[in-house]
Amino acid sequence: MEEESSVKLHGMWASPYVLRAKLALNIKGIDFEYIEEDLANKSELVLQHNPVHKKVPVLVHNGLPIAESMIILEYIDETWSDPPHLLPKDPYLRAKHRFWAAYLQETMMILSKTMTNGGKPTEDEMKEYWKKMDMAEELIKAELFSNGCPSFQEAKPGYLDIVLYSFLGTYDVVEEFYGFKHITAERYPFLASWTKALSEVPQVKDATPSSVKVIEILHAMRKNYLQLKG
Amino acid sequence: MEEESSVKLHGMWASPYVLRAKLALNIKGIDFEYIEEDLANKSELVLQHNPVHKKVPVLVHNGLPIAESMIILEYIDETWSDPPHLLPKDPYLRAKHRFWAAYLQETMMILSKTMTNGGKPTEDEMKEYWKKMDMAEELIKAELFSNGCPSFQEAKPGYLDIVLYSFLGTYDVVEEFYGFKHITAERYPFLASWTKALSEVPQVKDATPSSVKVIEILHAMRKNYLQLKG
Repeated sequence: MEEESSVKLHGMWASPYVLRAKLALNIKGIDFEYIEEDLANKSELVLQHNPVHKKVPVLVHNGLPIAESMIILEYIDETWSDPPHLLPKDPYLRAKHRFWAAYLQETMMILSKTMTNGGKPTEDEMKEYWKKMDMAEELIKAELFSNGCPSFQEAKPGYLDIVLYSFLGTYDVVEEFYGFKHITAERYPFLASWTKALSEVPQVKDATPSSVKVIEILHAMRKNYLQLKG
Repeated sequence: MEEESSVKLHGMWASPYVLRAKLALNIKGIDFEYIEEDLANKSELVLQHNPVHKKVPVLVHNGLPIAESMIILEYIDETWSDPPHLLPKDPYLRAKHRFWAAYLQETMMILSKTMTNGGKPTEDEMKEYWKKMDMAEELIKAELFSNGCPSFQEAKPGYLDIVLYSFLGTYDVVEEFYGFKHITAERYPFLASWTKALSEVPQVKDATPSSVKVIEILHAMRKNYLQLKG
């Protein structure tokens, strides 16, 4: 039996997708119980609540499970409809935020999908990656930040900020793991300053895992995958 | 200069993604101007309005461009907020519809991404494909259609119906092109009857392209890709 208004988040501490759900709950000021899952040995609850992808995060609200991080963000914003809002009110701006969030997600996936091959992106993948990053730097700024201010300077961080931060907030980890300079203030001044400003917001800072520990687990995962491949 | 309340859809007649936008506009009863694009020679307008993906559909509403079919569906539902609604009102049901729409989109992509390799899915891809189809058959029915009725029997087709139909509405085309029995009433009675019921809704029927012509263009595309690969 679930009690009234119970909010539980099943997660794994190093997952950028779980970080999204944590950030959204923190920013909205929603109390929740966090349940750490052992991904090698998932609980019955995760298997039962997310039978399709069997992945975290799973948000369980009053016993009802919601899976997939981007869908969880929309659910949180629609269910707790008091401000701060994660998405803007205007439908056109909402579309733009959704568009760029999906774009950043795709860009992030270029690198993260290489993990099952030992975390070694091919030359073509890197070319695609830089092309998408260059475009994000130029066009998100031009379309959404024409006055140079990150959106959350006027309000709390929202949907797009959360997705950006889940990707670039731990860029030092990515640099260390993949062995290349990922975002530098010289090459991506806009993305770098946006990410830095986000990292200083208390609700964001408190939820961010330790870089050193994330690097450790990434190396362990790479080793596991390489062993699995023989 | 755009006049007040001008709605233009830039598309390509055989695209399932363009079909989604057409269906949404038809179902909502929104008058729009349809502009067919030559994909080999895209208009300045598409390049200017969707500089990132340079793809159709692009919806241009009062001069403002919206790209990506799923985002266009949300935009249409939020902008023209009178019924019929494409997404349910309840946040939990909205999350479920979004989840299954994204799932069907992923399933569809397993086959469609093989097009650049000449439209020949590998054994592993086919295995993944059938697994996802089996799960869709079982779980969408269990989670959303427990009484056996497709959602649109109570209202007009919505977001999830549109995404389902863009994938399976032309399944005879897919069967002919890929050379395997795709959805049969024996194997997928629920998905097959849902798709059939949708195909009989006038707003859907009117927007569906001719199977014969779609097969022609798919074969032409396969030939082009194979030639490009040398």
